[in-house]
Amino acid sequence: MLRAALERARAQRDAHLDELKAFASIPSVSTLSAHREDVLQAAQWLKDRLDSLAMTRVRIVPTLGHPIVTAEWLGAPGKPTLLVYGHYDVQPVDPLNEWESGPFEPSERDGYLYARGVSDMKGQIVAFLRALDAIKAQGPYPVNLKFLLEGEEEIGSPNLEAFVDAHRDELGCDAVLNADAGILAPDIPAIVYALRGLAYFEVELHGPAKDLHSGTFGGAVHNPAQVLCELIAGMHDEKGRVTLPGFYDRVRALDQEEREMLARLPCGDEVWKQLTGVKELWSGEEGYTATERVGARPTLEVNGIWGGFTGEGSKTVLPAKATAKISTRLVPDQEPAEIRAMLCEYLRTHAPNTVTWEVREHSCGYGSVMDRTSPTMNAAVEALKAVFGKEPLFRREGGSVPIVAMMQQKLGVDSVMLGFSLPGDGIHGPNERQHLDTWFKGIDTYIHFLAKLAG
Amino acid sequence: MLRAALERARAQRDAHLDELKAFASIPSVSTLSAHREDVLQAAQWLKDRLDSLAMTRVRIVPTLGHPIVTAEWLGAPGKPTLLVYGHYDVQPVDPLNEWESGPFEPSERDGYLYARGVSDMKGQIVAFLRALDAIKAQGPYPVNLKFLLEGEEEIGSPNLEAFVDAHRDELGCDAVLNADAGILAPDIPAIVYALRGLAYFEVELHGPAKDLHSGTFGGAVHNPAQVLCELIAGMHDEKGRVTLPGFYDRVRALDQEEREMLARLPCGDEVWKQLTGVKELWSGEEGYTATERVGARPTLEVNGIWGGFTGEGSKTVLPAKATAKISTRLVPDQEPAEIRAMLCEYLRTHAPNTVTWEVREHSCGYGSVMDRTSPTMNAAVEALKAVFGKEPLFRREGGSVPIVAMMQQKLGVDSVMLGFSLPGDGIHGPNERQHLDTWFKGIDTYIHFLAKLAG
Repeated sequence: MLRAALERARAQRDAHLDELKAFASIPSVSTLSAHREDVLQAAQWLKDRLDSLAMTRVRIVPTLGHPIVTAEWLGAPGKPTLLVYGHYDVQPVDPLNEWESGPFEPSERDGYLYARGVSDMKGQIVAFLRALDAIKAQGPYPVNLKFLLEGEEEIGSPNLEAFVDAHRDELGCDAVLNADAGILAPDIPAIVYALRGLAYFEVELHGPAKDLHSGTFGGAVHNPAQVLCELIAGMHDEKGRVTLPGFYDRVRALDQEEREMLARLPCGDEVWKQLTGVKELWSGEEGYTATERVGARPTLEVNGIWGGFTGEGSKTVLPAKATAKISTRLVPDQEPAEIRAMLCEYLRTHAPNTVTWEVREHSCGYGSVMDRTSPTMNAAVEALKAVFGKEPLFRREGGSVPIVAMMQQKLGVDSVMLGFSLPGDGIHGPNERQHLDTWFKGIDTYIHFLAKLAG
Repeated sequence: MLRAALERARAQRDAHLDELKAFASIPSVSTLSAHREDVLQAAQWLKDRLDSLAMTRVRIVPTLGHPIVTAEWLGAPGKPTLLVYGHYDVQPVDPLNEWESGPFEPSERDGYLYARGVSDMKGQIVAFLRALDAIKAQGPYPVNLKFLLEGEEEIGSPNLEAFVDAHRDELGCDAVLNADAGILAPDIPAIVYALRGLAYFEVELHGPAKDLHSGTFGGAVHNPAQVLCELIAGMHDEKGRVTLPGFYDRVRALDQEEREMLARLPCGDEVWKQLTGVKELWSGEEGYTATERVGARPTLEVNGIWGGFTGEGSKTVLPAKATAKISTRLVPDQEPAEIRAMLCEYLRTHAPNTVTWEVREHSCGYGSVMDRTSPTMNAAVEALKAVFGKEPLFRREGGSVPIVAMMQQKLGVDSVMLGFSLPGDGIHGPNERQHLDTWFKGIDTYIHFLAKLAG
């Protein structure tokens, strides 16, 4: 089966690409209510596709938000059951004017396909589906398959946990394939074995009852934008540590062996600088390398801030309020639910009595660390070796895939993070792209992976 | 003349109000290029009106920006010549959703007229024009008059100085009436004798080449929004003083007599709180009362700030840049042109090398202090006394009317700040309003003022 499936997949590259373009053309932005119908359209697209793969019980299951698409194929008794997790929603596209081609008009340039979601993660979903096509043409799938494809990952999966709780039996499996993942470079296969959690908030400060003239009142009234800046500035100390009270209490320390393994990754400061275009890296939390800070240490970011007059020209206003979106990335064993209390305690202690404040919570999820020696992990390692011709690296990822921790907690299984995005793909930003050679290798890798997993 | 003019003015209140509504309906927002035609329409409205008052040499003079409207009447040889300064442009209206009626649909409620510009300062212009109507019906004007009405005050009068330089002779006068002013309360007449200057900037920080995923890069890359917050936080020290290097070097100290006079103003903390709706006043610069901080001490405000994702929901982005509009209010003898260098020096010293920065200048102007005993000032005092039945207070204003300092420097004359806005009018913010009883008294006051000025 393996050789024939690989040959078939290689012969179909134009068709692979056409399918990815079609899926990426659907603007399934989950955070914007104006795109609700588009998100539904992407779910329908997946359902049709899973039907075409002879999956059974293909369903679009409504939730309180966007629906979840499920399916299964249980025709390989005695073989492992793999639960395939993915998400069909995407991030917003702003700043729109920085895109060189329309975010939902997939455009091929210099070996890449550009569009919102091609890398995160419609490309990875389509790659897996195309691998199944190639296998199916040869005979039955070598392992049992289940699908769990959600439409709310980019907004923190608010309805996924309840769904998993309610469908624990149907979702039972030996391992999860989580394709929301990538490798380090086209010639550096890698597997993520740890992910950070997330706790995302909006902090709003209120000062005067309405916007004031900054001349008539400046000096008498505390400017909420200034206060917000002061509060945010105080959220890191001079050692780059987050000052929310108790923030580090539950952080699991890195052991020396793991630090040495991470130090061998080809991820020095120069690589980080090149990927991001910064003049200098941030020294960040004292005592840790950039790779450790991103992968194994918790951080706090200002994701957005606004207040006062932000239009063209000048307006001499002392704003009535100022707002920031602030998120923390968490590592085991931090409890996401505790972070809000820490943030509120910080504000209670530090906010001056010239303003009032409120905290709104957007999403939260646990960090996770996986076993690097499980059979599923081994199958992934072997598959990457077969296609890329070298041993994959194990690495920690700074982003969050809360579903991974949830699967550990609810179903008792690890996830194998096997996907083919690259660090420079610009996910979540403008001009998101997918490297096509790597993507085609990804289809081959999935074919190998399923074959290895069958034993 | 006086009694007949006052009677006529009182009989015409409906017509006064209709005229103000008509003028305030023109959305002459000078800072937004989309309103260019509206600004021009306001200039044309003024020209027509000045023609109707039998002014001569009524002109709409083009500038590099919005035009300046000029006119004169020199039929009172031997009498003083008064130059009337005003501006017909207005501030932007956002946040639009906080307006209870359309900003350019003047609406009467509870004794106020609500619309952008009714208080700042179309209402004051119309009041003076209506006073002239009433006088003109009785005979010639008692003093010589010149008009200088600009359309760029709300953007810092970028073209006014060149105009005044080029027309110094035509503008020659004994004093300026600057109607861009107000009193303290409907029963507290007051005259502003000092104004603060302004230096307004936009500071932009650049970090990564594009917006990054805050998980994948958070911890390795310095977040420009966080850096901006830290820089802004550092612009005040723990004593509430502005830390820009050299900021206080040229500040003229308050003398004890003036401090005592200011302390007698009915402007305690409770008044400031009531006007602004804040929970607590800011303690601000140590050692000064709120009234002194606003009127006689320089301050620094964040007028606007933005960066990263500011839309609905959550986006886990580490922004590529962050921007703030930051302005300083200045007092004699601070030099506005020096403030930019101080800001740049501060950034050079404090900005980390993880970001690059740039400073854009929007506008600047000097602060000023006027002689409280001149004949024109006396005429204003007497006029207010006659109409309000009590001695007006002398006070300092925290806002900026750079033209006042410019008139001192270019034409060698003081301005009398005589206008009828109130501190709670919400100028520059939503629901700007003009108290109508006070406004009608303003028309009477202008009639008295011109009569007194003639001697």
